[in-house]
Amino acid sequence: MIRAAAGRLEGHARRTPLLSSPFLDEIAGRRVLVKPECLQHTGSFKYRGGRAAVSALEPALRAKGVIAFSSGNHAQGVALAAREFGVPAVIVMPAGAPRLKIENTRALGAEVVLYDRAGGESREEIGAALTRERGLTLIKPYDEPEVIAGQGTCGLEIAAQARDAGVERGDVLVCCGGGGLTSGIALALEAEAPGLRARPCEPEGFDDTARSLAAGRILANAQGAGGICDAIVTPQPGEITFGIMSRLCGPGLVVSEDEVLAAMALAFQRLKLVAEPGGAVALAAALFHPGEIAGDAVICTISGGNVDAAMFIRALQTATD
Amino acid sequence: MIRAAAGRLEGHARRTPLLSSPFLDEIAGRRVLVKPECLQHTGSFKYRGGRAAVSALEPALRAKGVIAFSSGNHAQGVALAAREFGVPAVIVMPAGAPRLKIENTRALGAEVVLYDRAGGESREEIGAALTRERGLTLIKPYDEPEVIAGQGTCGLEIAAQARDAGVERGDVLVCCGGGGLTSGIALALEAEAPGLRARPCEPEGFDDTARSLAAGRILANAQGAGGICDAIVTPQPGEITFGIMSRLCGPGLVVSEDEVLAAMALAFQRLKLVAEPGGAVALAAALFHPGEIAGDAVICTISGGNVDAAMFIRALQTATD
Repeated sequence: MIRAAAGRLEGHARRTPLLSSPFLDEIAGRRVLVKPECLQHTGSFKYRGGRAAVSALEPALRAKGVIAFSSGNHAQGVALAAREFGVPAVIVMPAGAPRLKIENTRALGAEVVLYDRAGGESREEIGAALTRERGLTLIKPYDEPEVIAGQGTCGLEIAAQARDAGVERGDVLVCCGGGGLTSGIALALEAEAPGLRARPCEPEGFDDTARSLAAGRILANAQGAGGICDAIVTPQPGEITFGIMSRLCGPGLVVSEDEVLAAMALAFQRLKLVAEPGGAVALAAALFHPGEIAGDAVICTISGGNVDAAMFIRALQTATD
Repeated sequence: MIRAAAGRLEGHARRTPLLSSPFLDEIAGRRVLVKPECLQHTGSFKYRGGRAAVSALEPALRAKGVIAFSSGNHAQGVALAAREFGVPAVIVMPAGAPRLKIENTRALGAEVVLYDRAGGESREEIGAALTRERGLTLIKPYDEPEVIAGQGTCGLEIAAQARDAGVERGDVLVCCGGGGLTSGIALALEAEAPGLRARPCEPEGFDDTARSLAAGRILANAQGAGGICDAIVTPQPGEITFGIMSRLCGPGLVVSEDEVLAAMALAFQRLKLVAEPGGAVALAAALFHPGEIAGDAVICTISGGNVDAAMFIRALQTATD
């Protein structure tokens, strides 16, 4: 399915490069290879899964349109994919989502329906009503095989690029929310680069995946939202993604918000890349948790770059203070 | 010479991608394709020319070491190239150069010799003495055939990538200081993409190349340094680069510092890239001077990303005010 998704994404998704900096290698104490999915269309890897899922729909069904629940990056990925196919997209977003993400989703042609998370409105009820009325197809953000397959195309690229860079063994650190990117990459590596092992990375307080992997069963976060890493905060791993991750992934890594901000500043200074907080979690783990990683080289994703100027300035100021 | 340089750079210089954003297309009123040389090693295109020149030296001469005068990006390019060959590099820099650039040059293994520009010290005299004493070879920043050939490898990539993107005709806007990148790209396009035309882009007050092209002879700037675009401010075009540019380039484009800051903010927001002021000049021209450009598509370089946090924050704050 991942190879089929890669075929459908050919000429649409970007093959992002694999970058590095001797300054980052020095901090980490080993080679650090960075897969910058912030350079993907819509500014995050989510376009891969969105396009994979929309392109897999039967054309008559696709023509009725698609719907997604998302605080941002998945929304933009699905919106762009739908626009490319000329079909309607409805995105149900919390009213408190970053302004930039709401605006971008609208600008990509989607109809944005805001709901009040605090006020007790249920996005599921809103979505179910819209789906019934218009015959829309729900594109789930991670616990959906075609979405996982689309995110897995990033893993196919990592496998090939790591081989070109002479890296056959080591950890691939992945920014992890619901586990779509992590499980997709893990499946691709299993087939194409069995010496590489995916490991989910999460922020403190939202380490549901790390704890679930350690416990051998799905555990939830105490809180379902909050912190600066909004893009990758989910209540708990998905059923499908957890099954894949528990079979294939190494232990999870957990980083602090200060480490995330410092990683954002280093991506700015050393890679000339804009990472959003949730997108800098894996780089933070690579740089600041060297003792939890094995091998001479580590690969890490920067999963997205959709960050408001104020938060980016905070990262630059925190790191240079 | 450009093709030979490309051969020597193979496996060393990065083939940077060609990026785009529908949001930038909308601002510019045409397709905008961005060549982000900020993602090149050392954070600017200068590594191409530095590596090309150092690799072209006869080995016994190269072993004695190289010397360069540079306020920053050329320094880092030459320093990394020298380190890769295991030979000494001496970089003569003004004491007022951005701290980050001085530190990076030292961290790349070069010996940095600072001189006091305001105090009347002559970098040429300092350099000549060092060259005599140690048998170093001077790597000039732009008016040097092997350096121009190295920068031209960026043009070979643009020619191929533009063809892949379906762009056969149009302007290629290039951030221009002494003209090394502009003339190198112009030569590559002449051979590989004759429908594409290089055009130098400069900041107001330092538009020596635009005025020289218009006058048909080399004219100097009223001031030799200053402004926010330090990376691309030179007293006047080189002799060799001017000859190439006057034969091959279209008219120069001149942008304001406010346009440069806005372009930096848009590169942050829409491309997730860090551009330094001098590196954002061509993007500023593409976005804010559409009436001076012909065709359905425009290509522009982001020539470098070595910017201090304070200047970057200024760009983000200026643009969102």
